[in-house]
Amino acid sequence: MAKTIVAVDCMGGDNAPGEIVKGAILAANKNKKILVKLVGIEDAIKAELAQYTYDEAQVEIVPATEVIETAEPPVIAIRTKTDSSLVKAMKLVKEGEAHAVVTAGSTGATLVGGQLLVGRIPGVKRPPLAPLIPTNKKPALLIDCGANVDAKPQNLVQFAKIGSVYMENVIGVKNPRVAIVNIGAEEEKGNALVKEAYGLLSIENDINFVGNVEARDIPNGDVDVIVCEAFVGNVILKLYEGVGAVLLKKVKSALMSNIKTKVGALLIKSKLKETLKDFQLEQYGGAPLLGLNGLVVKTHGSSKANEIKNSVLQCVRFNEMEINKKIQEKLSDN
Amino acid sequence: MAKTIVAVDCMGGDNAPGEIVKGAILAANKNKKILVKLVGIEDAIKAELAQYTYDEAQVEIVPATEVIETAEPPVIAIRTKTDSSLVKAMKLVKEGEAHAVVTAGSTGATLVGGQLLVGRIPGVKRPPLAPLIPTNKKPALLIDCGANVDAKPQNLVQFAKIGSVYMENVIGVKNPRVAIVNIGAEEEKGNALVKEAYGLLSIENDINFVGNVEARDIPNGDVDVIVCEAFVGNVILKLYEGVGAVLLKKVKSALMSNIKTKVGALLIKSKLKETLKDFQLEQYGGAPLLGLNGLVVKTHGSSKANEIKNSVLQCVRFNEMEINKKIQEKLSDN
Repeated sequence: MAKTIVAVDCMGGDNAPGEIVKGAILAANKNKKILVKLVGIEDAIKAELAQYTYDEAQVEIVPATEVIETAEPPVIAIRTKTDSSLVKAMKLVKEGEAHAVVTAGSTGATLVGGQLLVGRIPGVKRPPLAPLIPTNKKPALLIDCGANVDAKPQNLVQFAKIGSVYMENVIGVKNPRVAIVNIGAEEEKGNALVKEAYGLLSIENDINFVGNVEARDIPNGDVDVIVCEAFVGNVILKLYEGVGAVLLKKVKSALMSNIKTKVGALLIKSKLKETLKDFQLEQYGGAPLLGLNGLVVKTHGSSKANEIKNSVLQCVRFNEMEINKKIQEKLSDN
Repeated sequence: MAKTIVAVDCMGGDNAPGEIVKGAILAANKNKKILVKLVGIEDAIKAELAQYTYDEAQVEIVPATEVIETAEPPVIAIRTKTDSSLVKAMKLVKEGEAHAVVTAGSTGATLVGGQLLVGRIPGVKRPPLAPLIPTNKKPALLIDCGANVDAKPQNLVQFAKIGSVYMENVIGVKNPRVAIVNIGAEEEKGNALVKEAYGLLSIENDINFVGNVEARDIPNGDVDVIVCEAFVGNVILKLYEGVGAVLLKKVKSALMSNIKTKVGALLIKSKLKETLKDFQLEQYGGAPLLGLNGLVVKTHGSSKANEIKNSVLQCVRFNEMEINKKIQEKLSDN
């Protein structure tokens, strides 16, 4: 099988370019079927590359002289910074010179660039950003999380289908259970958007729709594809992080409160760390922006090499499983 | 000062009537200025009362023969079960024979009954349900959490004002900081509802509006009144519970994994429990349904005596501080 080509935005994120280049090389060294195109300021990338051993046939540098900062207005940044690492990486996908982009840069610019530069698969109305979130069982796909506010019921139906394809083929969940986020388990509950989407989802034959999921039950992990509009998805994603961080801070302060608890802490520390690792959002790599002519993976702004590595490896499976073709088929089913 | 009269729905909730009656008596015994009217099936209430010592001048029984179950459609239940404990308790407020209702019964029936039976303060468009939620600092008021889906921007402005009055006068937070839940900190972010509400909130002089709050930052506790429409509020409230519960389950399983961790667990257990207690939603008592001609406090369905007691005590401060008069003044300010 041909190589999967991943354009890596080496200038985006808090730890660019060091951790980004490192992550790309780790991925290339792990999987010989990857070619990474490192996009960014040439000298900076070369200086980083000098530290590593890798197969030169797997690594290319694509020079870009500009950098899009997090605070820049996304549309203006994408339109005017044509020699930025993000714009050039996305153009590689558009022009068929890469299968995917991985970026830790501005979320706004990534979403805008995905739509304007990479472009949508025919039939996809709004490309959803769909991170995996930890649960008490297996991770679940939260779709959509930031790309499209004020969504319509039909958009949510597409999210359900796109998410089902992703979970089945990339994550390997057979017949993934799809639920819509609502404020009660009963069918008649919810706002106008959710009620109408519920009706549409119920009559779809090619997804495994199981009904409403209340926010309280999301962390239990009983559904695989969690459908919601972007505002609600964003609240869920961010609150997961926020509540987790504050609770862990509280646990730590309890462990450090006196001699007795400090001794106890030594005994439980490694086990506790291991258990809680499952519940960290970062470990699942970046969030794919789905429904595009190619794949765009947005990693955390604070990504380190490991998250970049996992995100690049994710692109291989996405490419080899022909996810976009499957999404297109699913959407044209009815 | 005259007594505060609280109608307690003794038949609502998982632990009715035992824990409900017990909680009401605990409150009466704690504060001599309370008169509790215990509404429900007379024999059942009498049997519970027989276990306690209390001042008979502080306790009355108001017989009601019916019970509204959680699963009943709210509007039908309120309209047809006219001799239910919830309907009778609410009618006591409407008729001026009680200042407040405390119920652990059906949320839906409570919200409907509040509007239909107790009635709104003139000028209040939609009465918000506003629980206190724990944060890393002081608790914050989450307003609205369940009463009104598909809210309008003007409703959110009222929530901000009503919430400010509550936090300032009931909880004692001077000049409470008000923020609106959004998907970014910048003014231009968000959906149509939030953008328009942001504009309206910015030009209000009589609230301390500090801008957007992202869901990630809610648990930090840097704002006092968290304004959102009910769907989002419900998601925040429920996810708080859900993420907290799963994380604690994980911590517990780590502590129980082997002999070493079990010894460690013994050393940290009491301190950990004490620290995490601050982060349990139940400890803040019930959620007030605000903007009504009286006060309705909805406690958790699983409420035990302590939550009922705290909720009854909350009504005293609400009544003595003349919160409804203050809300009415605030709303008529511009």
